[in-house]
Amino acid sequence: MKNVHRIEDYFTIKYRHKIFFTENVFSQENYILKNILEKDANSKALIVIDNGVVENNNTLLSSIAEYFNSVSIVSKCVTITGGEAIKNNLDKLIKVLSLIDKNHIDRHSYLIGIGGGAVLDITGFAAAIAHRGIRYIRIPTTTLAQCDSGVGIKNGLNLFGKKNFIGTFYPPIAVINDFNFLNSLSQRDKRSGLAEVVKIALIKNKKLFEEVQLLSDRLNSFEPSAMKSVIIKCAQLHFDHIVNGGDPFETGNSKPLDFGHWSAHKLEQISKFKIKHGEAVAAGIAIDTLYSANIGFIKPTTAKTIIDQLIKLGFQIYYPEIEIKDSNGKLIILEGLDEFREHLGGNLSITLLKGIGKSIQVNNIQLDLVEKSLNQLRNYC
Amino acid sequence: MKNVHRIEDYFTIKYRHKIFFTENVFSQENYILKNILEKDANSKALIVIDNGVVENNNTLLSSIAEYFNSVSIVSKCVTITGGEAIKNNLDKLIKVLSLIDKNHIDRHSYLIGIGGGAVLDITGFAAAIAHRGIRYIRIPTTTLAQCDSGVGIKNGLNLFGKKNFIGTFYPPIAVINDFNFLNSLSQRDKRSGLAEVVKIALIKNKKLFEEVQLLSDRLNSFEPSAMKSVIIKCAQLHFDHIVNGGDPFETGNSKPLDFGHWSAHKLEQISKFKIKHGEAVAAGIAIDTLYSANIGFIKPTTAKTIIDQLIKLGFQIYYPEIEIKDSNGKLIILEGLDEFREHLGGNLSITLLKGIGKSIQVNNIQLDLVEKSLNQLRNYC
Repeated sequence: MKNVHRIEDYFTIKYRHKIFFTENVFSQENYILKNILEKDANSKALIVIDNGVVENNNTLLSSIAEYFNSVSIVSKCVTITGGEAIKNNLDKLIKVLSLIDKNHIDRHSYLIGIGGGAVLDITGFAAAIAHRGIRYIRIPTTTLAQCDSGVGIKNGLNLFGKKNFIGTFYPPIAVINDFNFLNSLSQRDKRSGLAEVVKIALIKNKKLFEEVQLLSDRLNSFEPSAMKSVIIKCAQLHFDHIVNGGDPFETGNSKPLDFGHWSAHKLEQISKFKIKHGEAVAAGIAIDTLYSANIGFIKPTTAKTIIDQLIKLGFQIYYPEIEIKDSNGKLIILEGLDEFREHLGGNLSITLLKGIGKSIQVNNIQLDLVEKSLNQLRNYC
Repeated sequence: MKNVHRIEDYFTIKYRHKIFFTENVFSQENYILKNILEKDANSKALIVIDNGVVENNNTLLSSIAEYFNSVSIVSKCVTITGGEAIKNNLDKLIKVLSLIDKNHIDRHSYLIGIGGGAVLDITGFAAAIAHRGIRYIRIPTTTLAQCDSGVGIKNGLNLFGKKNFIGTFYPPIAVINDFNFLNSLSQRDKRSGLAEVVKIALIKNKKLFEEVQLLSDRLNSFEPSAMKSVIIKCAQLHFDHIVNGGDPFETGNSKPLDFGHWSAHKLEQISKFKIKHGEAVAAGIAIDTLYSANIGFIKPTTAKTIIDQLIKLGFQIYYPEIEIKDSNGKLIILEGLDEFREHLGGNLSITLLKGIGKSIQVNNIQLDLVEKSLNQLRNYC
């Protein structure tokens, strides 16, 4: 074809991904945050905190104020409601954006999100789009956020009834896991994240699964040293996948870390988010473990070992919401398969187990075997 | 400090930036788009077109439908209103996102934006955040978008009365400049983008400024071969800056390409966007050119050459809106300096001229010399 002119070249963007594990991040002796905050002219910090965290930590707001005074950075602290429901409309996002505007947080200033996954999702998305990206620091406060969602590079909001329909890949400049925040969590929030530990162990690391087995009783009573040990290992495995997995922004077809997640996302939605993400993941792991056995990838005894382990950790692995049907008699949870495919696009790609610590991607799911797995799960309990 | 554990590593994201210059992109013989669209299973295309473009090109919608039929990709065409005003609230963004949802556009499908800068900003932002990023192709239809905004990697929406307060860096998978779209533009839209040609010539490339001088009459009558020549060179200079400038996502303090833009952005806003971006940029170039002379960086005769050239191209370089004052008697346009600083953060950094084709960054602006420059500009006309 005549008269075609073309300009083409590559460029790369380099990201430095950092996760710290500590205690008392806002004590005067703790140097982690001080070292991260560059003292640019005019740089400021806006701290957005999950109000559940503030309610459980009486001295937190005063500690934060003292901390920023001591490092001579102008700061403003604001609390917002936490929980998945805040992701269901744009109100909280707009609120955080307006705080960024009013407090003159620019591309050389800091937005610090402190809380569970939902608050980190809202603050992370706001940071990603305000002024086309401001410096963002995550301080996850739940087991789930410390070992999984908070250590990643994504954020998301629910739109049109679809989980994380909008969001971005936006690496925070640092993630700081402060184990002290775990002490004041509800039992549900302490436990929920352990499902992600079991998940990543099953697909990536047999040794971690064995450690979870060994620590069962201590994890079930949330004994701090046991919790720290598995959280660090789970975070490290997620980190390795992002940094060394070859596809940090997920341009391919598969979401290899999302074992058990096609049904978990849908189960959360069916329950109107009364079932927490980690709780839904435990059920989703059980479903896909039984499916892996039904299709012949693992032995039934291996499936039993896995599901018994989830139960030992205190998870309710079956919920009546799993078997709710639509007006045509179709199980609503099965819509999760198509929504899961559609998020990435291309062919369906589901992670299944070939053994403990070993996963496989499949492009086809037999619906009759899913229904069989759901029946087995109901009878299991 | 005891008990600190740290995980840290780098990862990189590689982008391939491609700009094509062609005519009749939707004719059956044109292979450019066909080669870009991968034929993944389930991949679809949603085409969002500026309705001004459709009004001026009667056969466009049928050509697009035929084109996608011939390449066997399911496509859906939707028109939206263009113009900067659509960026002032979230309505059009939500509309495009809902079209992405309803038409099942996933991360392996395509969103194609066809139009001027505003439509490309809305569609580019929607593509950046839907499913955390879907494949995006830009087909700019105005002089301005073809030589400047459309060939870059940014998008933006106005919020809280601030231009591009939200947005992202999201490289499109391709930009296709179809010169045929220029034929049906209004005179204002044909001319407006030439301000960006003058801008980039002044800060980067003396030869291009000389070419603009030589082609003055032909550019003033929008003679196609003259327009093509300067659009390609202007796009190439912007492309080089993104790909080889070392800071594609603008993490530093300066916006070296935004010569004349601190006042231009504010002037657009003061005029409620009645003054088009390129028109405002012509005035902004004149202001900062006079300032560069007043501070002694360039000779008054050089400033005169530059401003005369803008006038020769048909630009109105002075607008009464430039001198509107607030209730305290302060020129509103001066707020543009602080907003410009705040967008990037850190210290103020303004591009000035040291000569034709040669720029310099300064961190301080003398307000009395700005006012002197504005007076000179008024008297110039």
